[in-house]
Amino acid sequence: MIKIKSLTLSILVFFFAFSNCLAQQTRWFTLEELIPGGVDFYTFYPRHTTQYQWHGDQLVQLRNDSVWISDNPMKQTEKVVFTFSDIEDIIANGEDIYHLQFPLSADSPVQFFSRSGSGFYDIKKKQPLSFFTYPDKSENHDISVESQSLAYNISNNLYILDKNGKTTAISSEENKGIVYGQAVHRNEFGITKGTFWSPTGNKLAFYRMDETMVTDYPLVDTSTRIAEVRNIKYPMAGMTSHEVTVGIYDISTGKTIYLQAGDPKDRYFTNIGWSPNEKHLFLAELNRDQNQMKLLMFNATTGELEKLLFEEQHPKYVEPENPVLFVPKRTDQFIWQSKRDGHNHLYLYDVSGKLLKQLTSGNWDVTEVIGFDEKGNNLFFASTNPTPMDRHIYKLNLKNGKSTKLTTVSGIHNGTMSQSGKYLLDRFSSHNNPGMMYCLNTNNNKLTELTSIKNPYSDYLVPTVNSGTIKAADSITDLHYRFVKPADFDPAKKYPVVIYVYGGPHSQMVQNSWRYGSGGWEFYMAQKGYLVFVMDNRGTSNRGLDFENVTFRKLGIEESLDQMEGVKFLRSLPYVDHNRLGIHGWSYGGFMTINMLLRYPDVFKVGVAGGPVIDWKYYEVMYGERYMDTPQQNASGYEETSLLNKADKLKGRLLIIHGDNDPTVVWQNSIQFLDACIAAGTHPDYFIYPGHGHNMIGHDRVHLHEHITRYFDDFME
Amino acid sequence: MIKIKSLTLSILVFFFAFSNCLAQQTRWFTLEELIPGGVDFYTFYPRHTTQYQWHGDQLVQLRNDSVWISDNPMKQTEKVVFTFSDIEDIIANGEDIYHLQFPLSADSPVQFFSRSGSGFYDIKKKQPLSFFTYPDKSENHDISVESQSLAYNISNNLYILDKNGKTTAISSEENKGIVYGQAVHRNEFGITKGTFWSPTGNKLAFYRMDETMVTDYPLVDTSTRIAEVRNIKYPMAGMTSHEVTVGIYDISTGKTIYLQAGDPKDRYFTNIGWSPNEKHLFLAELNRDQNQMKLLMFNATTGELEKLLFEEQHPKYVEPENPVLFVPKRTDQFIWQSKRDGHNHLYLYDVSGKLLKQLTSGNWDVTEVIGFDEKGNNLFFASTNPTPMDRHIYKLNLKNGKSTKLTTVSGIHNGTMSQSGKYLLDRFSSHNNPGMMYCLNTNNNKLTELTSIKNPYSDYLVPTVNSGTIKAADSITDLHYRFVKPADFDPAKKYPVVIYVYGGPHSQMVQNSWRYGSGGWEFYMAQKGYLVFVMDNRGTSNRGLDFENVTFRKLGIEESLDQMEGVKFLRSLPYVDHNRLGIHGWSYGGFMTINMLLRYPDVFKVGVAGGPVIDWKYYEVMYGERYMDTPQQNASGYEETSLLNKADKLKGRLLIIHGDNDPTVVWQNSIQFLDACIAAGTHPDYFIYPGHGHNMIGHDRVHLHEHITRYFDDFME
Repeated sequence: MIKIKSLTLSILVFFFAFSNCLAQQTRWFTLEELIPGGVDFYTFYPRHTTQYQWHGDQLVQLRNDSVWISDNPMKQTEKVVFTFSDIEDIIANGEDIYHLQFPLSADSPVQFFSRSGSGFYDIKKKQPLSFFTYPDKSENHDISVESQSLAYNISNNLYILDKNGKTTAISSEENKGIVYGQAVHRNEFGITKGTFWSPTGNKLAFYRMDETMVTDYPLVDTSTRIAEVRNIKYPMAGMTSHEVTVGIYDISTGKTIYLQAGDPKDRYFTNIGWSPNEKHLFLAELNRDQNQMKLLMFNATTGELEKLLFEEQHPKYVEPENPVLFVPKRTDQFIWQSKRDGHNHLYLYDVSGKLLKQLTSGNWDVTEVIGFDEKGNNLFFASTNPTPMDRHIYKLNLKNGKSTKLTTVSGIHNGTMSQSGKYLLDRFSSHNNPGMMYCLNTNNNKLTELTSIKNPYSDYLVPTVNSGTIKAADSITDLHYRFVKPADFDPAKKYPVVIYVYGGPHSQMVQNSWRYGSGGWEFYMAQKGYLVFVMDNRGTSNRGLDFENVTFRKLGIEESLDQMEGVKFLRSLPYVDHNRLGIHGWSYGGFMTINMLLRYPDVFKVGVAGGPVIDWKYYEVMYGERYMDTPQQNASGYEETSLLNKADKLKGRLLIIHGDNDPTVVWQNSIQFLDACIAAGTHPDYFIYPGHGHNMIGHDRVHLHEHITRYFDDFME
Repeated sequence: MIKIKSLTLSILVFFFAFSNCLAQQTRWFTLEELIPGGVDFYTFYPRHTTQYQWHGDQLVQLRNDSVWISDNPMKQTEKVVFTFSDIEDIIANGEDIYHLQFPLSADSPVQFFSRSGSGFYDIKKKQPLSFFTYPDKSENHDISVESQSLAYNISNNLYILDKNGKTTAISSEENKGIVYGQAVHRNEFGITKGTFWSPTGNKLAFYRMDETMVTDYPLVDTSTRIAEVRNIKYPMAGMTSHEVTVGIYDISTGKTIYLQAGDPKDRYFTNIGWSPNEKHLFLAELNRDQNQMKLLMFNATTGELEKLLFEEQHPKYVEPENPVLFVPKRTDQFIWQSKRDGHNHLYLYDVSGKLLKQLTSGNWDVTEVIGFDEKGNNLFFASTNPTPMDRHIYKLNLKNGKSTKLTTVSGIHNGTMSQSGKYLLDRFSSHNNPGMMYCLNTNNNKLTELTSIKNPYSDYLVPTVNSGTIKAADSITDLHYRFVKPADFDPAKKYPVVIYVYGGPHSQMVQNSWRYGSGGWEFYMAQKGYLVFVMDNRGTSNRGLDFENVTFRKLGIEESLDQMEGVKFLRSLPYVDHNRLGIHGWSYGGFMTINMLLRYPDVFKVGVAGGPVIDWKYYEVMYGERYMDTPQQNASGYEETSLLNKADKLKGRLLIIHGDNDPTVVWQNSIQFLDACIAAGTHPDYFIYPGHGHNMIGHDRVHLHEHITRYFDDFME
C-alpha cells in the first residue's frame, strides 16, 4: 500500500550523512534540515557529485554538465566525451538538458531529457537522431529506444508519437471511466505502468481498464472559491472491482488486438512480458481470491491463448511481482521468481512451461535480479543471504547453478552490471558508512573505489544508533530493531521512548544501511531527549513467506504481539521510563499506532497516528483482500481487527492526522473513528492537512513534524 | 446567522434552576446534567408542569393528559373540561395526542396533534371536525384553522390537503433546484416559512425559489459504506444568488397566479402579509445591496402591483423583519415596525401608504408586538424600556398613542394576551427568579400567581453570577456583562478566566433572566475553578441601530476593541490571573475567538473556536452582504477582516471545532484556515464532529463540552 512512498522517504533518509567524528560537534539539527521539504534539506542533503552509468563496459560519468568516460573502469583513466551544451546547441530549442541516459549496449544511442521532451543522440556521429516534444497535457511518457517511438496518455486515452512526428490515437474513449495505457489494479502485483513496448518497439502492449462499475469516492477540494468535488474510483474490499483487458497495438499494421483472456471480472492480469521474438506475450493471471496464479502465454498477433505454462497456489495468497525474464541468447528459456518454497527464489523454465531447474534455494530471499552478462551465461542477483540486514550481490552460473558471492563487506550493496558482466558498479552503504561507490571486476574480485559521500553534518551533535534482535512473540523468530539515543545519553537517567512503527507487508525499516536507516525526525526526537525504537515485526518483508503471511485474515494482531515484545525489551532497560512510552506511525503504521493504544491502553501514554486504516472494509480490493479476504468471507476477522469496535478503549493521548484528499487510505477511516470515539465518550485529538493526499509533501512536511513533536512534548511529560 | 440555534440553547439554559439556598449544597454538577443532550439533562430540566393557553378570556391549562379551564383566570376556579383520551377514543386511530392548541377566539375549534397528523375538535359538541393524516415524507405542515386545510411539502413541491381529504398539487416541478412553499433567502429578513394562508384560508400565498443558478456546495456523508456527496445550494457573498417569486393559489378557483414583481434577480421578497379582506398581499422588497426597502401592495387576484406604499433607505442597511400587521376592526390601518429613527418602533399607516402616526419613540426598542385587544383599541408590546437588560410589557392606546407599562418587577416578561385584552399571562424570570407565571388584569393591574418553577439543584454547590457594565471602546456606550465565579470563590486567590463570546448581530447574551442567562458549561467551568466572563459588545442587538451597525463593512474590529475593554476590566481585578486568560465561542463567536487570538496574540493563552467563519467571502449572500457588502464592493474590508491573512499571528493555543456537514458556516472555512496556518508555520489544534451540522446536538453535545473543557484544562495551566 502506502509503504512505497514511506519507504522512498526512508531511503532518502538512509543517505543522510551525519557526523560521528569527535571534533566540532556543537550544532543542533533543525527540522528544516532533517525533513524532506525543509528549506535547508537540500543544502545539507548529501549526494554523490558524480552519476555513474554503464555504456558497454565503459564507465560513464555525468558531472554537472559534462560527460566523462573511462575505458577501463578499474583505472579511472577518464576523459571528457562531450558537454550537455554540445547537445543543447544542436537541438537548439533553447532548453537545458537535465539528464542523459546511456544505453547498456555500446551500439545504441544516448537518450537525453529536457523539460519539454526527450530525444536520442548519436555520440559517435555527434548528431541528434530524433526529438519528441511531449504533447500538451500528456503524461506517462514511455519511449521505445529501439523504434524511437513515444507512447503517452492524454487523460484516459493512449497515443503513440513516432520518430517521424506522426501521432496515432490507440484509443478515443470519451467515457472517463474507461482508461487506456495506465497502471491498473491500484499498482499492486508489481504493476507500475500501463504500456509495454516489445523488444524491437514495433508492438505496444497496454492495459485497458473499465472502472465504470466501480463506486465513486468523493474527494473535496476546499482551496477553490467554493469547494469542489473530485471523484475517484475506489473499489472497497468485497465490492465490485474494475475490469482489465490487455491490448496489443502493431505499429506496422496499425491494428489493435485484445488478448482472449476471457471474462475480465474479478481477475487480475499482471506481470506482462514479451518473448524476445515478439511473437508471444506472457502474463500472470490471478483470481480475485489471490490464491491461484496462472502463467499464460498468448499469441501476440492473434490474441489467442496458446498455453497455460504452470499454476501456483497457496492456502493464503500468492503474489507474483515480476514478469518472465528471458535469458539472453536463449529465446526459449526464462527466469521466474516465486516464493513457492517459502522464500523468493529463481526458477529456470522453458517456454513449454517445463521447469528446468530451481536456480536458487535456501533460507533467504532473492530481492532483485540485477541482470545477465551479454552471453547469458551468468545472472547477477541481490539477496538477503546471509542476513536480512544486508544485501549482497551474487553471480549465478546458469549452467551449473552455482552462486558466487561477489560482495564481502557487510551492508547494503546496490549493483549495476556492465554489458559483458565483467564489471559491477556497487553503490554501498552500511550503518557506519554513509555511502560510497566502487567498481568490482567480477572475474578476479578486484575492486577500485570511485567516490564516497562526504559528511555534511560533521559539526553537529549526532544521536547514536545501534541495532540488535529480540525474539518475536512466537519465542523463535528473531526480530531486528534499531535504537536511537541522544548524543549525550546517560544510562543513569530515565528517558521517555517513542516507538516508530510501520509493521505492514512490503516494508523493512531496519537494515544495515547508514545508521540503520535512522535520521530525520528520529534524530530530532533524540536531540530533544527521547529514545526512538524501531522494529520490524512479523508480517513485514524480506524474511520469507511464513514470516509475512502469519498475519493473514487478522491484520494487526500478531504485529501487536511482536511490538509488545519490543515494549518488554524496552522495559527491561534501566534507563527507560516505563510511564513515558509513546508510539508513532503512518498509514499501516497509523493503523498499528491506534491498534496498539486500544489493545494495550495501559502501556502507552501518547500516540500519533497518520493516515491510518481504521477498518479494513474501507480499504481497497487488491491489497485489502490479499491479506484479509473479503468482509463477506472473513466477517470475524474484519470485526476483530476493526478499530471502530475498540474506540471505547482509548485511554492515552492520541493525535490522528490525515490528508483531506487521501486517495489511498480514504479520509472516511479517521472521520468514522472520531465518530466511534464520540459515541464511546473517548477523546482523540485530530489534525488535517488540507489538499494533501496520503503523505504530506513539500514544506508542509516540516510543519507536520513540528506538529507531531509538539504533541509528544505536550503530553509525554 | 447561527445565533438562532445558539440562542435557542441559551434560552433553554435560562430556565435552568440552580440552587442558591444554603442548605445541602454538597453535590457537584456533571456535564450530563448541565448540557442539553446529556442523559441527566431532562431529569433535572426544570419545567412548568402546567402549560397555559388563552381561549377567549378563559385560561386553559394543559396538565399531563387533561385540560382544565378557569372562567376567571384571576381566581383559578378551575375545572376539568376533558382529557386527551376523550379525543383519542373518538378519533380511534390508536395514537396518543401529544399537544392541544386552543384558539384565541372562543368560537373556534381546538386543534390537536398526534405523531401522524393533526385535526380539529369541537369542544362544545365533543366531536372531531376533521383529521389530517400527514402524507408520507411530507414536511412543513401549515394548517389553516379557518378553512381547515393543510399545506405541506414533499421534497421540492407544494400540496394542499383539504378537510374532505382531497389533495391538490400546487406544483409538480421535477428539477430539485426549484423549490415551492419553503422558506427562502436563507431565513433572513424574518423569514421562517414558505406558505402564508389568507385570513379565511381560501388562498395560499407561497414562495417559489429557483436555485438552479446557485453553485452547489458539497457536503460529504462518511457514515455510508462508501462516502457519499450531498450537495446543497450555497450562494457565497458576491456570487450569483437564487431568484424568488411569490405565487397565490386560490382554493375556490383552483388557479395559481404570480405577483408581477418584476425581475427576481438580486432582490429579496420578504415580510409577506395579507390584507384582512384577502384582496391584497403586502410584501417588502429589498434590493441586493439591502440599503433600500419598498413596501408593496399587490392585487391578490390578478397579481398586479397596485401600490408602492413607502420606501426606507439607510446608507448602511435596512433590515425589515416583520410583515404588515392590520389593526383589528380597521381594514385600512396597519402597524409597521421600523428602525428608521435609530430604534425599533411602531408606526401606524393606512393602506394608501400614508403615515398616520409614530406610535412609539424613545431611546429603546420594541422587541415584540404581543397582540391587540379584540376591538383594536389597544396594542400590547414588549420592549427594552427602561433597560435593555429587561423586557417589560406595555399597553399602547392606539387612539391617543399613550403607552402604559403593565409589568413592574425588573426581569424578562414574556406575555400572552387574552382575547379581549383584559388579561395578560406573563411568563417571568429574572436573575434571582428561575421562573414563574402570573396572570395580570390589564384594567386594574391586579395580579395572581399561577405557578413557579421549583429548583431541582437545591443540593448542589452553585456558582455565583453577577452582572454589571463597563464602557465600550468608544468610552461612551455602556456594555453589559455577566460574571460567573466558583461557589467557593476567594478574592485573595488568583483565578484563570474564560471569556465566552458571541458578539454578532441578532444576539444578546446578557439579560436579566435567571442568573443573567448563565448556567450549563459556564457553571461547569466555574465549578472547576475558572471565572467565566460574558459581555455583549457593540454590534449585538436590542441596543438600537447605531450600536449594531457600527461594525458595517468591517465585522470583528469594533467587536474586538470592546472585548478588549472587557479584558482591561478583568485585568483590573486583583483575583484575575493575567497570564491565564482564555476565550471560547461558537459560530460568530468562533470567528471572534480566533479573531481575538490573532489581533491580540499576547493576551490569550487558550482559545476554543467552534464552527467559525474565517473569511466572510465564504459566508452566504444574505447575511454576509448585509454587514460586509460584496467582496467586489468592499475588497479592503474583506481583506482586513479575513483571518486567513493573520494566520501567522497565532501564538496561544487554539482548538478549532467544526461539524463536517455544517450547511451554515461551511467546513471550508476552518479547513482553509488550517491551510493558512500550515503555510505560516503556526499550529492550531482541530477537531471534527462527523455528521453534525452547525451545532452539535444530542448526546454528542456532552462530548463536545468535555472536549472543550479538557482543552482548557490541558493548556490553561
